[in-house]
Amino acid sequence: MLSAAFILEGLGQQGSAAQRRAIAKAITLLESTRADHRAQGDELLTALLPHTGRSFRLGISGVPGVGKSTFIEALGLFLIRQGHRVAVLTIDPSSTVSGGSILGDKTRMEQLSVNERAYIRPSPSSGTLGGVAEKTREAMLVCEAAGYDVVIVETVGVGQSEIAVAGMTDMFVLLQLPNAGDDLQAIKKGVMEIADLVVINKADIDPHAATRAQAQITSSLRLLGMHGNPDHATHGALWQPRVLQISALLGQGVEGFWEAVTLYRSMQTGNGRLALRREKQALAWMWERIDAGLKTAFRQHPGVRALLPTLQAEVAAGRIAASTAARNLLAAQAQPAHGAIETQANTTSSSSL
Amino acid sequence: MLSAAFILEGLGQQGSAAQRRAIAKAITLLESTRADHRAQGDELLTALLPHTGRSFRLGISGVPGVGKSTFIEALGLFLIRQGHRVAVLTIDPSSTVSGGSILGDKTRMEQLSVNERAYIRPSPSSGTLGGVAEKTREAMLVCEAAGYDVVIVETVGVGQSEIAVAGMTDMFVLLQLPNAGDDLQAIKKGVMEIADLVVINKADIDPHAATRAQAQITSSLRLLGMHGNPDHATHGALWQPRVLQISALLGQGVEGFWEAVTLYRSMQTGNGRLALRREKQALAWMWERIDAGLKTAFRQHPGVRALLPTLQAEVAAGRIAASTAARNLLAAQAQPAHGAIETQANTTSSSSL
Repeated sequence: MLSAAFILEGLGQQGSAAQRRAIAKAITLLESTRADHRAQGDELLTALLPHTGRSFRLGISGVPGVGKSTFIEALGLFLIRQGHRVAVLTIDPSSTVSGGSILGDKTRMEQLSVNERAYIRPSPSSGTLGGVAEKTREAMLVCEAAGYDVVIVETVGVGQSEIAVAGMTDMFVLLQLPNAGDDLQAIKKGVMEIADLVVINKADIDPHAATRAQAQITSSLRLLGMHGNPDHATHGALWQPRVLQISALLGQGVEGFWEAVTLYRSMQTGNGRLALRREKQALAWMWERIDAGLKTAFRQHPGVRALLPTLQAEVAAGRIAASTAARNLLAAQAQPAHGAIETQANTTSSSSL
Repeated sequence: MLSAAFILEGLGQQGSAAQRRAIAKAITLLESTRADHRAQGDELLTALLPHTGRSFRLGISGVPGVGKSTFIEALGLFLIRQGHRVAVLTIDPSSTVSGGSILGDKTRMEQLSVNERAYIRPSPSSGTLGGVAEKTREAMLVCEAAGYDVVIVETVGVGQSEIAVAGMTDMFVLLQLPNAGDDLQAIKKGVMEIADLVVINKADIDPHAATRAQAQITSSLRLLGMHGNPDHATHGALWQPRVLQISALLGQGVEGFWEAVTLYRSMQTGNGRLALRREKQALAWMWERIDAGLKTAFRQHPGVRALLPTLQAEVAAGRIAASTAARNLLAAQAQPAHGAIETQANTTSSSSL
């Protein structure tokens, strides 16, 4: 594995084949779980951090069949014609469970994938959603350091991955079909209320349904916002979530979409909320990784592993209160590890009875 | 503080003044945070656990003004006339934040509160929602051991407390007003999808609106259920969430409500889901308390406390990656505590640079 300094030098060679190799090496290093690679990865991250943060981070989600690939390809090619460099990263919850992938089709985004101003990276295919999200966040930083000024993070509208994507991007866009019931699902999963923009795709197929859906979702957004937590503006005008109609297949509405994104970016930069959002995201990410680390350490502790099966069975059978079992397990972790076998020998009576 | 054995004896004297005193003492003991009380509390819980679990645990939620008190009083008096003994416990998220309480009005449930076959306990007024929920769960076990065969856990439709109440009861009932938009809020907060029964109160005021609301919520429940996770039946017929209209003020619909509850209980007992639900709840409760304990221990660790302010500032400023900071803090906790000052002296350079 190459040193962080060497990779960093490669990342600086914008547009070259050497840069593409450096990006791939950096992401591979960051995806490795080996302790020495992780230390090198941390070194690399800290070194490239000053070169990150200047891109616009765009999250895009929607159920299978909504037309995400078609939309992202149309958008990506449009942005490249405008002089941008575009990276597309993917979080696919299905790949973390099955090893297969809803988004894994190799023929997706045919034109964009061969464009030298685009970089497309599929979802890491192993690990928990938290682990995959962490790798994607880090890959995003690598792409930014390599000069990609629009980073699109795509996910599919199943599972919890949408919350993860909204939590690492500047703007979260929800693609919907012109379908009643579709929006109810999005509300149910808490996705509608985190959407900064809702886009009704395939509007050309049934314009009447699309217009009905637009009115319905606009009214839902208003009702959801009304009772929501008051989210105090720092200063200046606040962006209000809105609903657009497009047809990605016909290329209709892509320009209008990007105008809305540009307006969002300028408003949220002006009122300070974009900076605030990134700050909150970074701290939330830190605490999320701490929580995951604490849980892993707990489950791996020999004292806990010795006690857990018996206590879980006792709790499930209603013979010991859940809170009592929790205290016993926490106490077991606090003890030196060599006490584990002794503790195991008198499991339930080791409580405060 | 009295011994667990003494309290347990008092709890057995059904209907007596001694029993009411024993209940109050038990709950006070379980609410104490002193380590020696906590040990006694665990002893008491383990001793009374065999006498618990025979009641029906009913969760009731709804926004302020929906008429929860009127409904619970009407229901409680109805149940007492049928020969039941009724305990009412409360989780009020507002009391944990402000010390005040949305549900704290002393004149609530005037007739029920003086009935000797009823026991009413207001929300614990301090602690996090997790802590308050734990105390309420334990108070519920005390009431069950004292022979109350219907335990109602009430909460208000703001904050996260509804998920906590659904997580400790056999059936979760959502009270709604005959109001459009009301149900959207419930869907947004994920409350609609955990409701086993939705009750439209104040149906007498506007019967047409109530009937519209009933149709609308029924259709929402169907749409939410359609795309939901397939929840495999163990065996026998499965309860499907339904929508009722009542007028608690006029006493209309209370009997029909209880018929629905009785049907739910018999179906979910027959198909094994009630037992499964309680088992899952107990294990989820255990892990929730473990998570809370791990976080508290982490935040109190001297090494973590020494590093945290600097690292948080570095992460917020984008000078260190969140995942790197998380690893440094986890490593600080793993070190012996006396290393804390030394670690603080070279915060950022203590990473893997």
